[in-house]
Amino acid sequence: MSKKNNKIKNVFQVYGYNNCFPLLNQSNYEIMNIYILEDKKSVFSKRIDFQKYHNHISLLKKNDFYKKFENLRSQGIVVSFKGPVVKSLNDFDKTKNNSCLLILDRIEDPQNAGQIIRTAECAGINGIIFPTHNSFSISNTIINISQGAFVNMPLYEVTNISSAILELKKNDFWVIGIENSIDARSWDKLDYSGNTAIVVGSEGKGIRKKVIDHCDFLGEIPMQGISNSLNVSAAVSAILFERLRQIKLK
Amino acid sequence: MSKKNNKIKNVFQVYGYNNCFPLLNQSNYEIMNIYILEDKKSVFSKRIDFQKYHNHISLLKKNDFYKKFENLRSQGIVVSFKGPVVKSLNDFDKTKNNSCLLILDRIEDPQNAGQIIRTAECAGINGIIFPTHNSFSISNTIINISQGAFVNMPLYEVTNISSAILELKKNDFWVIGIENSIDARSWDKLDYSGNTAIVVGSEGKGIRKKVIDHCDFLGEIPMQGISNSLNVSAAVSAILFERLRQIKLK
Repeated sequence: MSKKNNKIKNVFQVYGYNNCFPLLNQSNYEIMNIYILEDKKSVFSKRIDFQKYHNHISLLKKNDFYKKFENLRSQGIVVSFKGPVVKSLNDFDKTKNNSCLLILDRIEDPQNAGQIIRTAECAGINGIIFPTHNSFSISNTIINISQGAFVNMPLYEVTNISSAILELKKNDFWVIGIENSIDARSWDKLDYSGNTAIVVGSEGKGIRKKVIDHCDFLGEIPMQGISNSLNVSAAVSAILFERLRQIKLK
Repeated sequence: MSKKNNKIKNVFQVYGYNNCFPLLNQSNYEIMNIYILEDKKSVFSKRIDFQKYHNHISLLKKNDFYKKFENLRSQGIVVSFKGPVVKSLNDFDKTKNNSCLLILDRIEDPQNAGQIIRTAECAGINGIIFPTHNSFSISNTIINISQGAFVNMPLYEVTNISSAILELKKNDFWVIGIENSIDARSWDKLDYSGNTAIVVGSEGKGIRKKVIDHCDFLGEIPMQGISNSLNVSAAVSAILFERLRQIKLK
């Protein structure tokens, strides 16, 4: 799962309905192989264009399928494809109004990364920015956890988060950092309207100091218990749906 | 990890700072063994009462510790203890005002269960109800994922969710089911004040029909993307922090 391998091969493998059907219903990716459990062919024929993909489909008998994919919760379908899952921030349309980008600083856990992509897509965010270093890199694990959200959620890898923020600021983005601080407002007192970039860090380490320095506002979610440790993907969900609530009101 | 074993043995094992320190700083549980990496003794002495626990502490040398706990992200500490992690709903103080209970129907995934316990504790919920059947059962995996929240969050196992709901209704609880439905209000248009019980089901199956029939209101989070599938623990986070927002306003 090294970055190097991903970049050279740029081949991913997804499984299950939620990942495979959205992938096969668009044309940004180069589909390589579609492995289907033979018993499910008639069910899948309503969801997949068998004619379009006939050169790529392998129908496998039960024994062969489960031998090949024994550890996956595949639901009878596995697809391999070539990227681009990761995009360049240059591709982002900065002239659009009321955009919201999520910036992930030092998030390393694939489970969190995948869940955040999934939540962000459900909450109507326009893209996710993450750095090349000190970060997760996009892997099969992450895109499978995203449950198809990777198809609809632009994932921008940048070499330098600070530069990316400065670039966004030139395009009238307000930058909100989610970080416990005496300067932080409660998450529900922040104004998420207009073009916003929301920065979150990992639970353990938080956002890097130099990235915080670029934030226009800081926000925090006040902890009500004694554990004082909200998972970063849960925090992202609370923040992004508070943003959605505010935007719906306008 | 069978329910039977858990009930007979009632012994759990947790690891890492977030789980072990809260556990050792209260007295509801019977501490059995505290395994500590010898190198960390002086650091831990500020967080653990070594005198109180001296009969239970084993200081292990590096090789021995990592041989014993090689697959755990232990941070140098592992504690085994006896319950009661799971409580009876009879123990819940139903006369308290403005209580909020979370009811989990057919949640089976331990990752989701553990994350929900963690999020609920951070959001100031008063307890979590889950059924004996068709549900996760409390395991080492779940309480470790909760990152210490299990110490502060009452976990009520009930044989029948419908009976539990009827009992709560007798005590002036309003019951809100989170379920996509034409009868459902947007999650931010629900009134979470007073005594409330919030019911969530699994992503795939939702809440059981007969449980829905007991709900006074239904609520849903409108999906903004195409994936249409928010993880249940992410949904719980959005709901519980919307509740917190409303309560803070009053």
